[in-house]
Amino acid sequence: MQIVIIGSGNVAYHLAKAFRLKGIPLAQIFGRNREELGKISEELNVPFSTEHLQDADLYIICVSDKSVENVSQLITKKDCLVAHTSGSLPKEILTGEYRKSSFYPLQTFSKSKELDYEKIPFFIEAENDQDQQLLIELASRISENVMESSYEKRKYIHLTAVFACNFVNHLFARAKEISDSQEIPFDYFLPLINETVQKIYEIDPKSAQTGPAVRNDVRVLELHEQLLKDESLEIYKTMNHSIQKMYEL
Amino acid sequence: MQIVIIGSGNVAYHLAKAFRLKGIPLAQIFGRNREELGKISEELNVPFSTEHLQDADLYIICVSDKSVENVSQLITKKDCLVAHTSGSLPKEILTGEYRKSSFYPLQTFSKSKELDYEKIPFFIEAENDQDQQLLIELASRISENVMESSYEKRKYIHLTAVFACNFVNHLFARAKEISDSQEIPFDYFLPLINETVQKIYEIDPKSAQTGPAVRNDVRVLELHEQLLKDESLEIYKTMNHSIQKMYEL
Repeated sequence: MQIVIIGSGNVAYHLAKAFRLKGIPLAQIFGRNREELGKISEELNVPFSTEHLQDADLYIICVSDKSVENVSQLITKKDCLVAHTSGSLPKEILTGEYRKSSFYPLQTFSKSKELDYEKIPFFIEAENDQDQQLLIELASRISENVMESSYEKRKYIHLTAVFACNFVNHLFARAKEISDSQEIPFDYFLPLINETVQKIYEIDPKSAQTGPAVRNDVRVLELHEQLLKDESLEIYKTMNHSIQKMYEL
Repeated sequence: MQIVIIGSGNVAYHLAKAFRLKGIPLAQIFGRNREELGKISEELNVPFSTEHLQDADLYIICVSDKSVENVSQLITKKDCLVAHTSGSLPKEILTGEYRKSSFYPLQTFSKSKELDYEKIPFFIEAENDQDQQLLIELASRISENVMESSYEKRKYIHLTAVFACNFVNHLFARAKEISDSQEIPFDYFLPLINETVQKIYEIDPKSAQTGPAVRNDVRVLELHEQLLKDESLEIYKTMNHSIQKMYEL
């Protein structure tokens, strides 16, 4: 089976790398960014092009959500399968006469960070059983966690991930801003952060809640508010309000 | 040196356990909750009392912030050292004629969760060098990370921890609420959460930010808002606003 990956960003890079590590050949990486494609091509030994899209059986579109529709129109072939990798788009966003599908890896990707691909859940949706089977088998060569998922479910998966990953990272960024302002090394907080995460492997996060809001410790809440301003203060108030609502305080 | 721990909550339990694991004898665990004290006493083989506070050289008060002042008045001895374990109280909250200090472990404690005490940072403040040295040496028998810290600094350490730990845990609780509502197992998100945390060991969290807000993906932001309500919607808006402000989007 001839596979082409379209895109040169984090998802394209890691997906191409995961395929190569499992010995799955890629016919081409295609995109607009010659410099990034060149780097991926060299590292993974895969041909690339910015102009001529290779004939293939499967095209996996790994571009930003807003570009998926436009990029999908570059595929003029009919007898082929096209997948996008977005958590928040229906497969019908793909615009062409080919068979449409979704191939969604639930993970956060940075080019500079190594990943254990076998742990990444993949969510698959296709138009028919044969395509569904094909994509499930392909994803299963990379990952131990491959599941079918409708668009409706995928939207909620993505939303959950935004809370559990994107927002968590932003809290780390705001926390570091606070500790940096006092010249406290952010490294001091890594054991605490690790413990916070390890806990949820054993305890429901709702039962594991600690801190001044769940204790309704008004003195500390007020003291902290005096130390904060702008967006960090807004986050402080919103999170505490939400904690107190969850526990009916 | 005779050491007494006052309190029967998570901090008292884990501190007592950390001391016992390192073979540091405890003269007594003292508190009001006979049932909890009984359990700790039995597990760690330490005498307990709810009535008669043992004579000691060092009392470590491990009670909620709002009880520290009252509890500190139970210590009528003068020639002794008293420490509280709060991140957000000055040592002067301790009310008595003894020498005052702070012995603050930066960690989140649940009784049911095992901990690697050696990784927990301890922040120490005392009235004089001798007490400071004594507490630093004591903490160093438990932990590899022991530092001096003024009250001013401790307030910011605690505040950073609230963002990086308490609020992060609450995001996990809200995320699980979303995934539960769609019968999506929260376990699917654990590799993603792990990766989010592992990243900050290698990349500054500000550089590691991903998700719809930092991409300014208005379509996804609006789609997600339609799926949310109440506190989760408030969190969604506040966090996205803060992300967009941080990156000047």
